Amino acid sequence: MITLSSDFGSPYPAAMKGVVLQRTDARLVDVSHEFPRQDVRAAAFWLREILPYFPPATHLVVVDPGVGTDRAAVAVEAGEHVLVGPDNGVLLPAARALATQADAEAAAGDGTDAFAVHDIGYEDAESSTFHGRDVFAPAAAAVHDSWVDDGTVPNAVDGLGDVAPTDEFVDLELPEPKIEGDTIRGEVLVVDDFGNAITNVPGYVLEGLDEVRVDGQSVPAVETFAEVPEGQWLATVGSHGNVELDVNRGRGDDAFGVKASDSVRIEL
Amino acid sequence: MITLSSDFGSPYPAAMKGVVLQRTDARLVDVSHEFPRQDVRAAAFWLREILPYFPPATHLVVVDPGVGTDRAAVAVEAGEHVLVGPDNGVLLPAARALATQADAEAAAGDGTDAFAVHDIGYEDAESSTFHGRDVFAPAAAAVHDSWVDDGTVPNAVDGLGDVAPTDEFVDLELPEPKIEGDTIRGEVLVVDDFGNAITNVPGYVLEGLDEVRVDGQSVPAVETFAEVPEGQWLATVGSHGNVELDVNRGRGDDAFGVKASDSVRIEL
Amino acid sequence: MITLSSDFGSPYPAAMKGVVLQRTDARLVDVSHEFPRQDVRAAAFWLREILPYFPPATHLVVVDPGVGTDRAAVAVEAGEHVLVGPDNGVLLPAARALATQADAEAAAGDGTDAFAVHDIGYEDAESSTFHGRDVFAPAAAAVHDSWVDDGTVPNAVDGLGDVAPTDEFVDLELPEPKIEGDTIRGEVLVVDDFGNAITNVPGYVLEGLDEVRVDGQSVPAVETFAEVPEGQWLATVGSHGNVELDVNRGRGDDAFGVKASDSVRIEL
Repeated sequence: MITLSSDFGSPYPAAMKGVVLQRTDARLVDVSHEFPRQDVRAAAFWLREILPYFPPATHLVVVDPGVGTDRAAVAVEAGEHVLVGPDNGVLLPAARALATQADAEAAAGDGTDAFAVHDIGYEDAESSTFHGRDVFAPAAAAVHDSWVDDGTVPNAVDGLGDVAPTDEFVDLELPEPKIEGDTIRGEVLVVDDFGNAITNVPGYVLEGLDEVRVDGQSVPAVETFAEVPEGQWLATVGSHGNVELDVNRGRGDDAFGVKASDSVRIEL
Repeated sequence: MITLSSDFGSPYPAAMKGVVLQRTDARLVDVSHEFPRQDVRAAAFWLREILPYFPPATHLVVVDPGVGTDRAAVAVEAGEHVLVGPDNGVLLPAARALATQADAEAAAGDGTDAFAVHDIGYEDAESSTFHGRDVFAPAAAAVHDSWVDDGTVPNAVDGLGDVAPTDEFVDLELPEPKIEGDTIRGEVLVVDDFGNAITNVPGYVLEGLDEVRVDGQSVPAVETFAEVPEGQWLATVGSHGNVELDVNRGRGDDAFGVKASDSVRIEL
Repeated sequence: MITLSSDFGSPYPAAMKGVVLQRTDARLVDVSHEFPRQDVRAAAFWLREILPYFPPATHLVVVDPGVGTDRAAVAVEAGEHVLVGPDNGVLLPAARALATQADAEAAAGDGTDAFAVHDIGYEDAESSTFHGRDVFAPAAAAVHDSWVDDGTVPNAVDGLGDVAPTDEFVDLELPEPKIEGDTIRGEVLVVDDFGNAITNVPGYVLEGLDEVRVDGQSVPAVETFAEVPEGQWLATVGSHGNVELDVNRGRGDDAFGVKASDSVRIEL
């Protein structure tokens, strides 16, 4: 199984699918092609939240503001999964989550969250414009087949170049909130299609509370949207375990006046 | 085969797909994840119009304004199909259509349109926020595998709870038009992506007519858009058999000033 | 494998998929359902650029401003591929590209780009409104199965009518630029989701140049977006080999004030 993720909208992902299907019979599953344009951090967040729900798979990810520069292409082994994409950090939060999950499932329980990064050479590729189609798609097909065959990343990809383990890669860690007593300085990581502003503040802080202050305003802390009237704002714990700023049947981002990367102060 | 329908946009459906694929090898087919947000009636209409075109399948549907409340989860047997979703009526118009279709195909012809509803307990599920991923996706996978194996809904779903037949469920019938002589008081059920306003008025009323009055305005009644000049409004019979208010290469909803749930008066 | 392309948005493509899956077990792959509404030329361009990346397949295409008129339905053989859609030219540029590709792969190298068109009768179909579902979907399923079985287009499609070779079909050629010395009069073929204005001007004209004039304005000619600062406009060679008018992390169509079908003058 190969999952596909990008910020391409339509129809560019179809060219990637064609290339993949030229090279492998793998099942294809779209994660999203509507990630916020060139927003590596937003894509990294969504992938971290979504990919651990998948069975073992190869995950092709192309959110790549550096396309056309000489940034590397990488394959990242993580548990029974392997991720393929640009070396800009977008794969790393998901790789850590998948490695930690595998670790937990193996009952090793030592929290090593080990993953392994491989550099995918692509000096033989022709295109400098559409690496999704001309570099990452053939790489993902080759990695998938090798991974399914014997659980390894291949030593080379036909038409691209050699593949080799590397310790040099761009890492990315999503920002952590600062918790000082009852005051938390966090950040909006992404706004979803519903307008829910998803923060980096862990959900447990709302436990037992009926109300918090968000940027100075009093806001009900609830378990479900339906606990407040339509149109009223609220803070709740989202499906990813973080504090979300929402509006029942409305848009939280508008009501709270926040967007991705904005800081937010929560007082308990 | 499992079809997936929701009002989630992107990327939440991917988490549902991951959960389903953890549990079954079934083929997945997206119906739509762009149903109007939290509009149970619109989704019910589209499912009724679309699902009968599918071969026997399990249909996972999550349009669920009541998520987080204690509304039930249900599986509905209908002909060779089975539907899984929230107990808010969204499955029922499609279930009736599928049952009627099966009935017709079996040449029984008695119009019983029988379907059977099962309550899916989910007291063992952990999430109160994202039932699509944590309740309906695992339920659909389990229902699919049981349905394919022996044509029954399972007695329980691992990690959720017991499943049992029930007579207590939320029903939904799409509104019927009032036809009094030559005056019909109907309603716009949905507006599609093209801006076509699809009413609940049966198409046969237009038979033999060149013109009708819609909310007092004279409008050509045509078989195809191309019968009127670009930009002109028209009434026609849509692909679902109902009267549609359209504009040739334009948006009918704007031209007629209507949206879903608006009433509309048609004089023949 | 059957690929699906349309300008339907959502959820109408699902009805087509249901009909196809009633009739065949073929793998389905969406190319796009977001092609610009009723824009035959834009769809023809995208299909020509994308379909050659696919392995041998049946390509179902429904961009069909003439739906409901008596325009024909056609199947077009091209290399190892076959295309099914309305007789309005939308299939032809892709058919030529696929035939040329097959020719090149066969090392025949005589550039014949031969393709063969078949008329698909549909006098037995019931619908005059939704040919995608009621004509093209069953036709594509039947063509696919016959094509896979013995490499031929069938003589008839159940429920539609007879299929026969024809020399009478609507052709479409994308416009060619006029190159006179250093002045090129071209045209914007499509604007993609990123706002890149893709012209019909072949990319080789930019070779060795640092700058060109576009409609009288001086614009850097670059290999990759990253060569200019964010927000600056540029001309480059896109992934399809044509000159694109872009903005680094912005919209080229807005910056250059162009849309599909607009003419553009490039001075080298």
